[in-house]
Amino acid sequence: MSWPGGAAYAVSVTVDVDGTFGLPRGGDGSEARLTSRSERSYGVLRGVPRILAILAGARVTGTFYVPGAVAAEHPETVGAIAAGGHEVGHHGHRHRRPDELSDAEQRHELAAGLEALTSVVGKRPTGYRAPEWEMAPYTLDALAGLGFSHDSSLMSDDDVCRVPSGSGSVIELPVHWSLDDAPHFDRGGDPATLSAMWHAELDMARAEGRHVTFTMHPEILGRPHRACILERLVERALGDGAWIAAHREVAAHVGAS
Amino acid sequence: MSWPGGAAYAVSVTVDVDGTFGLPRGGDGSEARLTSRSERSYGVLRGVPRILAILAGARVTGTFYVPGAVAAEHPETVGAIAAGGHEVGHHGHRHRRPDELSDAEQRHELAAGLEALTSVVGKRPTGYRAPEWEMAPYTLDALAGLGFSHDSSLMSDDDVCRVPSGSGSVIELPVHWSLDDAPHFDRGGDPATLSAMWHAELDMARAEGRHVTFTMHPEILGRPHRACILERLVERALGDGAWIAAHREVAAHVGAS
Amino acid sequence: MSWPGGAAYAVSVTVDVDGTFGLPRGGDGSEARLTSRSERSYGVLRGVPRILAILAGARVTGTFYVPGAVAAEHPETVGAIAAGGHEVGHHGHRHRRPDELSDAEQRHELAAGLEALTSVVGKRPTGYRAPEWEMAPYTLDALAGLGFSHDSSLMSDDDVCRVPSGSGSVIELPVHWSLDDAPHFDRGGDPATLSAMWHAELDMARAEGRHVTFTMHPEILGRPHRACILERLVERALGDGAWIAAHREVAAHVGAS
Amino acid sequence: MSWPGGAAYAVSVTVDVDGTFGLPRGGDGSEARLTSRSERSYGVLRGVPRILAILAGARVTGTFYVPGAVAAEHPETVGAIAAGGHEVGHHGHRHRRPDELSDAEQRHELAAGLEALTSVVGKRPTGYRAPEWEMAPYTLDALAGLGFSHDSSLMSDDDVCRVPSGSGSVIELPVHWSLDDAPHFDRGGDPATLSAMWHAELDMARAEGRHVTFTMHPEILGRPHRACILERLVERALGDGAWIAAHREVAAHVGAS
Repeated sequence: MSWPGGAAYAVSVTVDVDGTFGLPRGGDGSEARLTSRSERSYGVLRGVPRILAILAGARVTGTFYVPGAVAAEHPETVGAIAAGGHEVGHHGHRHRRPDELSDAEQRHELAAGLEALTSVVGKRPTGYRAPEWEMAPYTLDALAGLGFSHDSSLMSDDDVCRVPSGSGSVIELPVHWSLDDAPHFDRGGDPATLSAMWHAELDMARAEGRHVTFTMHPEILGRPHRACILERLVERALGDGAWIAAHREVAAHVGAS
Repeated sequence: MSWPGGAAYAVSVTVDVDGTFGLPRGGDGSEARLTSRSERSYGVLRGVPRILAILAGARVTGTFYVPGAVAAEHPETVGAIAAGGHEVGHHGHRHRRPDELSDAEQRHELAAGLEALTSVVGKRPTGYRAPEWEMAPYTLDALAGLGFSHDSSLMSDDDVCRVPSGSGSVIELPVHWSLDDAPHFDRGGDPATLSAMWHAELDMARAEGRHVTFTMHPEILGRPHRACILERLVERALGDGAWIAAHREVAAHVGAS
Repeated sequence: MSWPGGAAYAVSVTVDVDGTFGLPRGGDGSEARLTSRSERSYGVLRGVPRILAILAGARVTGTFYVPGAVAAEHPETVGAIAAGGHEVGHHGHRHRRPDELSDAEQRHELAAGLEALTSVVGKRPTGYRAPEWEMAPYTLDALAGLGFSHDSSLMSDDDVCRVPSGSGSVIELPVHWSLDDAPHFDRGGDPATLSAMWHAELDMARAEGRHVTFTMHPEILGRPHRACILERLVERALGDGAWIAAHREVAAHVGAS
Repeated sequence: MSWPGGAAYAVSVTVDVDGTFGLPRGGDGSEARLTSRSERSYGVLRGVPRILAILAGARVTGTFYVPGAVAAEHPETVGAIAAGGHEVGHHGHRHRRPDELSDAEQRHELAAGLEALTSVVGKRPTGYRAPEWEMAPYTLDALAGLGFSHDSSLMSDDDVCRVPSGSGSVIELPVHWSLDDAPHFDRGGDPATLSAMWHAELDMARAEGRHVTFTMHPEILGRPHRACILERLVERALGDGAWIAAHREVAAHVGAS
């Protein structure tokens, strides 16, 4: 695989903007938990702008996976993401884990999320990421037929690849828990350790000339003392000659190769 | 926001003195667990004095959130806190999580805590913090009407802000799990890591010219080999030109601005 | 408090030798779990000798808290502990948590443990430590009447103190989870971090001229790559001028003071 | 114990290739969890080749413990392991924990695993490792009679030893959770810490002139930024004069001594 502009390797920064729908069961039953809800709102209202500022400062674009219901609740924030030139991807509608839903419920989550995101962003999303990173057969099969060109939910490879989706296929941009901020900071993780791990992964992606996806959450990495992890990751990747691009750009490049 | 004396930023040290009421269900059902109870008593009897000595040595005042029943059980300790010039805030009565109580039970926790704290301290508390950091609608709505000027239970922002409370409002001094000692030391965390994270947060607060709240527990950070974390935090903040103040001073300053 | 020989402070090394009785419910229901049982046996057969060698090399004595049933199962190991000049303390009979037992069951655990330990060691133990560090009222009340002079189960203080036991009292040598190897290594803790924390606690004990108890398990700290934590702790304490002594010596000194 | 070629000590690298059968209950009930399944498949398809390349680069052989059903599902991968000169050991058939099975079920797991592995590899395995490291009496008793010469499931010792199996015995190559990558990386562990711990264990094995087994999983240590842990472990051991050998070689050497 060769990358645009002769880049040695490729990097995507992805941000899951779950809002209060990221609480257990999409927030159902957590209506009275004002503090838990406020932590999630912080992600949308404070974390996203901080991440957008870092990306803008480095002149790179990222991919923000957003549940439809979050976009409907926060149209200005999601509009600001799109206005910044970033990709807005589909992350379910109410952030329900696909494998815990019936096929009909999965179909509804896909349709409702598509409608809400298209309405808020003004264009139909072409990328999908399964809530809580647990893809299920119905959803994967449906993606290509719904016009999605790419997915970022599976852990089956290091580099971009193609996976079957119904009678067609989608470009897969694989992920992993070790390249996600959430498990690391579940109980007091060290920011310096995560930074070192991610820089080591940049080294490996460069050595292998491949693509790598990092995933973060605005209520976790968007906190003041953690945001420098993203800032340094992007600086290091740019200094290394990486092509930093949104998932839709990577999928288009790979699909055309 | 400008800070008193032209300070570059503002810092509050807050201490949750939960005593044995910090055990599950406010200690109900733990009557026979003498070791667990003794760890909690250590916080009141050994941890609080050690923290008071550090604050006195640095000539700064902090805010101690205390359940009413703890104040009734340990009037000397709570009296010593108040005598040191520190703020004593309301932290429920028996440290029950508001969102797990009915409205009537929340009303009772607020009233009983107010009575006990007013009786022990000799003046009515004006600050509130929800036990286990889970605010609920009834309690938030009731605060302004009960004469509280400020709350420190939500995670919706980095800086001090104003939030609606019934027909009025209260000043919110937001918190976060990463600025609290409890999750970090839940299973053997590294003191050096927490110290580095908190100093990084000081750097961010200074860069943003804002206020930041740190939260600790006397049975956790009040242990001999951990107390230096507080000592160094205060030294660093003072050296940086921070205004270190109790929540009531910060709320009064912000409310008057 | 002054210490023998003008020592600046005092340190006790304590080792909980739980064997297979350290499995949940004293091992009941784990009969078929041969690997879990083998890890516990490792503690008795490999970990204890390694710890004994370190203590002998440094010419210091420690306290080994042993359930009666472990002593009955491993008389040679427990005999070697006593032959090395170390204290063998009472750690229940089948390592059942006192607060989960009825008073009659607690009485039986105390009596059966006393009988087994006296039989194996050839002298009656005078120190007690509650299994799983959860003392209960019946057991604490019974200790003095059963001839125990000291206990090491509570977390209520930093330094040695005296606590009521029935109509008499016992010397308490307090403990804490942060001075125990088990929580730290529950899921892959860093040996260097634990070592740094324990050395920081030595510094504090020296500064305060007090006693401090460290607790370890032979299947945890007795592993080859972790045993150096004990070796360095003892070296550092000796270099610092600490009096390192078994709990019975400390209790006798304090009781006579 | 003396080692071949006058080596100072001996090291085995072992890899548990669990595939999707490593999910809870051997994967039963996880059919719709495509992401969890993809992470497991990654181990087989990407992690195993990366580990094989490191071992080949260092010219050392390892032992891969493989459930029979994984071998049947991935005959090319398992064939590549064998073709590289590595040992393929028995790791159950569907990776069910022996102590949770009846004797008849254990017998079936042993027989089905033997048949599948023999068929794929072309020769009968002579080493066994209990799934989830929980050996049970029926399985241990059955090993010698089924032609196994060695087992690697118990934690009872540091060095190689002999354990009874039915009317015969097997060579035991003991393991431990601290020498396994899985607990360390359960929630965001630091690769540098694991590396330091394992190098410390190499130092101890050399000092004691004994054998030591390290265990890893291809979906964990086979990730790009973690694989260097294995690379450096092998380099260090070779530089130290260790004999690095598969379990079958170590068992043969010890059995002949």
